[in-house]
Amino acid sequence: MNTAATPRTIRIHPADNVAVVVNDGGLPAGTALPGGPTLVHAVPQGHKVALADLPAGTAVRRYNVVIGHTAVDIPAGGWVNEQRLVMPGARSFDKLPAPQPPAELPPLTGHTFQGYRNADGSVGTRNLLAITTTVQCVAGVLEFAVERIRQDLLPQYPNVDGVVGLTHSYGCGVAIDAPDAIIPIRTVRNLASNPNFGGEVMVLSLGCEKLQPERLFPAHAIPIQTATDAPAAGAAGPWEVPTVPGRETRGGVAGFGAVCLQDDQHVGFMSMIDSILTQARGHLERLNRRQRETCPASDLVVGVQCGGSDAFSGVTANPAVGFATDLLVRAGATVMFSENTEVRDAVDQLTRRAATQDVADAIVRELAWYDAYLARGQADRSANTTPGNKKGGLSNIVEKAMGSVVKSGNGPIHGVIAPGEKVTQKGLIFAATPASDFICGTLQLAAGMNLHVFTTGRGTPYGLAECPVIKVATRDDLARRWHDLMDINAGRIASGEASIQDVGWELFQRLLDVASGQRTWAEKWGLRNDLVLFNPAPVT
Amino acid sequence: MNTAATPRTIRIHPADNVAVVVNDGGLPAGTALPGGPTLVHAVPQGHKVALADLPAGTAVRRYNVVIGHTAVDIPAGGWVNEQRLVMPGARSFDKLPAPQPPAELPPLTGHTFQGYRNADGSVGTRNLLAITTTVQCVAGVLEFAVERIRQDLLPQYPNVDGVVGLTHSYGCGVAIDAPDAIIPIRTVRNLASNPNFGGEVMVLSLGCEKLQPERLFPAHAIPIQTATDAPAAGAAGPWEVPTVPGRETRGGVAGFGAVCLQDDQHVGFMSMIDSILTQARGHLERLNRRQRETCPASDLVVGVQCGGSDAFSGVTANPAVGFATDLLVRAGATVMFSENTEVRDAVDQLTRRAATQDVADAIVRELAWYDAYLARGQADRSANTTPGNKKGGLSNIVEKAMGSVVKSGNGPIHGVIAPGEKVTQKGLIFAATPASDFICGTLQLAAGMNLHVFTTGRGTPYGLAECPVIKVATRDDLARRWHDLMDINAGRIASGEASIQDVGWELFQRLLDVASGQRTWAEKWGLRNDLVLFNPAPVT
Repeated sequence: MNTAATPRTIRIHPADNVAVVVNDGGLPAGTALPGGPTLVHAVPQGHKVALADLPAGTAVRRYNVVIGHTAVDIPAGGWVNEQRLVMPGARSFDKLPAPQPPAELPPLTGHTFQGYRNADGSVGTRNLLAITTTVQCVAGVLEFAVERIRQDLLPQYPNVDGVVGLTHSYGCGVAIDAPDAIIPIRTVRNLASNPNFGGEVMVLSLGCEKLQPERLFPAHAIPIQTATDAPAAGAAGPWEVPTVPGRETRGGVAGFGAVCLQDDQHVGFMSMIDSILTQARGHLERLNRRQRETCPASDLVVGVQCGGSDAFSGVTANPAVGFATDLLVRAGATVMFSENTEVRDAVDQLTRRAATQDVADAIVRELAWYDAYLARGQADRSANTTPGNKKGGLSNIVEKAMGSVVKSGNGPIHGVIAPGEKVTQKGLIFAATPASDFICGTLQLAAGMNLHVFTTGRGTPYGLAECPVIKVATRDDLARRWHDLMDINAGRIASGEASIQDVGWELFQRLLDVASGQRTWAEKWGLRNDLVLFNPAPVT
Repeated sequence: MNTAATPRTIRIHPADNVAVVVNDGGLPAGTALPGGPTLVHAVPQGHKVALADLPAGTAVRRYNVVIGHTAVDIPAGGWVNEQRLVMPGARSFDKLPAPQPPAELPPLTGHTFQGYRNADGSVGTRNLLAITTTVQCVAGVLEFAVERIRQDLLPQYPNVDGVVGLTHSYGCGVAIDAPDAIIPIRTVRNLASNPNFGGEVMVLSLGCEKLQPERLFPAHAIPIQTATDAPAAGAAGPWEVPTVPGRETRGGVAGFGAVCLQDDQHVGFMSMIDSILTQARGHLERLNRRQRETCPASDLVVGVQCGGSDAFSGVTANPAVGFATDLLVRAGATVMFSENTEVRDAVDQLTRRAATQDVADAIVRELAWYDAYLARGQADRSANTTPGNKKGGLSNIVEKAMGSVVKSGNGPIHGVIAPGEKVTQKGLIFAATPASDFICGTLQLAAGMNLHVFTTGRGTPYGLAECPVIKVATRDDLARRWHDLMDINAGRIASGEASIQDVGWELFQRLLDVASGQRTWAEKWGLRNDLVLFNPAPVT
């Protein structure tokens, strides 16, 4: 549909002095743009063309934001790329706009999905047995045990969707008392109570590790009183981790249990496996009794993310996600947007959209902390862009950020959480995380995400074992080639076949379907990436 | 054999004023130690008893090293534990002893093993197809492909021991130009040429990631000229990464190949899997032609490590490892000892043992760098000890370090490598790494380790897919209970059934057997821990 015969470009905002080439394969020099200049350079797909003469030093505007100044004279019809653009400095945190939030979006009612209601009020979109680990030492044994559970136990519990070992590289060999250690510790803790795990917390520990089970789950850090099939007994005092395999904590309170490999009762490797399987059986019994029920869309906790971005990300997929974000927020759901380095240059937009001054202050607190974290390692936000981003037309992090932040839609920002924290609010939440796909995904899972949206322009086969991931392609070409990996094609927006609203509604409906059990492509193939913790503290 | 009727303690050095209780279950108050005081406290197994009155402020000596000063008056027969001991400050790097290395150890000849000789002179102890990844994005696809290779291809190549996906969390979402990024990058690079992978380097990349294949493997960074079955052609100029799956690099030079998921030729998920399998087939053909041949013990590259340590580590297992280290060095092999925080307090011993001033300077350079790294995160060496260490009787990092460093034996230290570097020397090498079991193991693999020794007192089921791990128990009780996880029982040293020399020779012989193909317990059960990279630079 995009042929050389019909050159097509997109200008996001009327004040912009560049537009992006849409056509597959780009456009050759000499192409006359409809209503615009004739190209003086060949311009690749996704790259920017100057709409007017831009003498050296001219502010280049995209999204009506200055994404840089021209380093050389660029004539109208010339190619504007990262070599020809000087990136602006990071916006100061002083004198940011005070909150002037847009009006709350109008409510949207009547949308439901079929979910697993948990005792604490959260809702799962999948029914998974998750096994938390305190330390990587147990990972090999757990892998062996998980395979046994999959083969020997799961067939007896047909309502359970799967078993997931929550393995990670934390727990020992780390400076666990360093100030920043709170981030990985609370991440592991909060992962255990993701809504997709049904309130069942099963812990596998080694015994001698720094991250002791009592430290990971101190009294009331996880909601023992909300266990699925028994009242809380003896809720006072710290939770005692049982060292006897198979026994449950707290005088029979269901939902929690631990196995410790160094327990004296373990004689021989298979005794460890037996303990894990015995413990798992109790959790599986309860999980198997769960039933999907009709839940309002407000029970969704959606994490939005992008990875392998290109210049279309901010034109097609991310605006469509932003539209769906607004629909979700209108329906009363929680939507988290993240990726510190990809919102850093939009900090003024964010503080302006903050619902309250507290929210604005929290946004600045998180971004300033992250600036300092990067500076400690002699890096800054410009470390974000990748070769693929640049090849895809994104000249620098400012341009990338402007295209990334549109996933957050147009409503007020209602809250902020720090890395690894649990989200407790409805509405639009800035979950401050690194932009690394896997760290961001892990932190959104810890925050309580039960559905994940991931946009990509270059293409990535991203998937998680813990939560369905709906992947949105920014370009027709990617959607065509990766037809059995991409769930939604937002490339139709660039080719004019669909509007942002069309794709936004399609995504919204798909979210409800997937929440109800429809499988994503990543689920069909079983594509799963490992959890990656954010540990800004040292290892030892 | 250790009953309450025969109280048994070990004093390491005649100048020590504490001894360690050997008996399982410890000793009760009132026990009269043979030739020593009567216990005034109950003292747990592995913990220290005062051999003389130690008024507050007395220097407590173990290994003839001051491991702290008493915080309170401790009478002869009293329990010396971490609450009653004030840890000394870190030893200054100023005025360290100049090298006064011991004489070179006498040669040991006539010991051989059956190994896989590689074209670059290195020798594998296993014959594995390793698939290097540039970024975690490809991990889910690789897992799918590896399962296919295992099921469909490996049966056709019976001389190949297995296939290993070298997955990790690096490659994108990281500050790749930060100064410290060199560490994870060279680690991934050097992992690819571990001797157990037979000189075959197969790379799976996404396409848009920061760690591009060309950056990972620039010209000559891996020894292209040493490929197994073809001469180096066109060795000048940078290595061009092929984007066409199945084709090989450098005009037919064997051993190197890459698959890129974002390659335009990939249409549909299974086309990616097909590309990976096609590429794998070529590598498997060559690996399958390898044969074990008789190699001198000098071809071993042994990494020694401890984890889950207790007070017996420094009394039984680690001295036995140290004895075996000396045998290996005498036989001309390479032995790496590591774990920065566990040698930090022995820095004066190390500089004294350095073969040259350059080696001494390099030791100090690495340890000073690591001190600064910890300080940046508001931590220091004392972050090392774990609850299990303390429960096992190790009062602090000084005591732990004295017991850890004995794995290095008694010879001169011949060289030092920084984290992620390849070892190129024979003899005793300090490979500077964090003490985290998995980071240390990963860095020793990158250094070229073809055999791994791991001692443990508390017990850990540690294993690696890339290299056999021989596990040595420090205590009878652990060896008895974990009889099918521990390969060697050094606890017999504490109970008097065997000498350090006996167990050291047993370990040396076992190393040769395992190098020749005998499987370890971890291999029999298939216990594998993931690689963990050391990335001191920020994520983004």
